[in-house]
Amino acid sequence: MLILGIDPGTAVTGYGVVRAGVTTTLVECGVIRTRPDRPLPERLREIAEGVRELIARHQPDAMAVEDVFYARNVRTTLVLGHARGVILLAGAEAAVEIHEYAPAEIKKAIVGTGVATKTQVQFMLTKLLRLKDAPHPSDAADGVAAALTCAMRLPLARAVAATRR
Amino acid sequence: MLILGIDPGTAVTGYGVVRAGVTTTLVECGVIRTRPDRPLPERLREIAEGVRELIARHQPDAMAVEDVFYARNVRTTLVLGHARGVILLAGAEAAVEIHEYAPAEIKKAIVGTGVATKTQVQFMLTKLLRLKDAPHPSDAADGVAAALTCAMRLPLARAVAATRR
Repeated sequence: MLILGIDPGTAVTGYGVVRAGVTTTLVECGVIRTRPDRPLPERLREIAEGVRELIARHQPDAMAVEDVFYARNVRTTLVLGHARGVILLAGAEAAVEIHEYAPAEIKKAIVGTGVATKTQVQFMLTKLLRLKDAPHPSDAADGVAAALTCAMRLPLARAVAATRR
Repeated sequence: MLILGIDPGTAVTGYGVVRAGVTTTLVECGVIRTRPDRPLPERLREIAEGVRELIARHQPDAMAVEDVFYARNVRTTLVLGHARGVILLAGAEAAVEIHEYAPAEIKKAIVGTGVATKTQVQFMLTKLLRLKDAPHPSDAADGVAAALTCAMRLPLARAVAATRR
C-alpha cells in the first residue's frame, strides 16, 4: 500500500511517499516550492500541479494531509487554508482516499507524545524507516511523518471499522 | 467587459456575472451548493467544477473574489480558506485576471459606507443594475456585489496605473 503524505504550505509544501507493508519503506520525499514573487492564485496553481504530478507518478492508495495548526495568526491560517484546499481538491479529483491528521496526532503516532519536538520526530522517522539520515528539508520530513502516521493508523482504523460491521 | 463576481463558501458559493460598460448590466447570478453530507475534499471538487463551468460558459475578462471575513471563528475561517483556494485556482488555471475585495470595500463601493447592512447593499444593487427585485438568494447578491465593485473600481485602478507608467 502506497501512501502520499503532505504537509501543506503556501511557500513550501513538504511531501513523503511511503510503502506500507510488513516493513514500511520510504519511496521518495521532497518539497514543492512556490515563487514568492507570484500572486497567491498563481502559487496555488503551482502547488496543485505539483501534487497532481506526484499522484500521477506514484498512484498512491491513500493521501495523508497534515491539518493546519491554527490560532496563532488568523491571516496565516486563512492563507494556509487556501493551500490545503487545492491539495485536497487534487486528491478528490484523482479519487484518492484522503486522511487528515492534526500535528499533535502525527507526533503521538511517530514519537509517542503529542508534544514531541521536530528533532525527536526526525530521529524517530530515521529509526522507523531505517534511514541513514533524517529526511530533509524539515518540510519534507513533515510530509513523511504524515504518511507514516497513516501507514501505522490505517490498518487499525480498518480493523475497528470491520468489527463494527 | 464581463466580470464574474464570487462570494466563497463551503456550503453555498454565490456568484454574479455583470457586463460593464456605459451602463452595467446583470447577465446572470446564482449559487453553487455543495452536498452537506459529503466530505470536504468532495465539496471542494463541486465548488471547483461549478466555477470552471461558469468561466467556460461566460469567458469573463476578470474575476472579483470577496475576501473572507475572518477573526470570528478560526476553524470556520480555515475551512472558508479551502473554498477560496480552489476558486482562485480555477481562475488562475483559466488565466483570468483576479481581483480581491474585502467585505467592507464592497459595501463602500456599492452603498458608500463600509458598515452598510445586507438590505442596503441589496437595495443599491437593485437600483444600480435597474432590476425589478434584489438578486436572491443573498449569497448570489454578494457575488453580484463583488462583480459590480470590480466594474466600478477597475477603470479607476487602470487609469491610476496608466499615469504611473
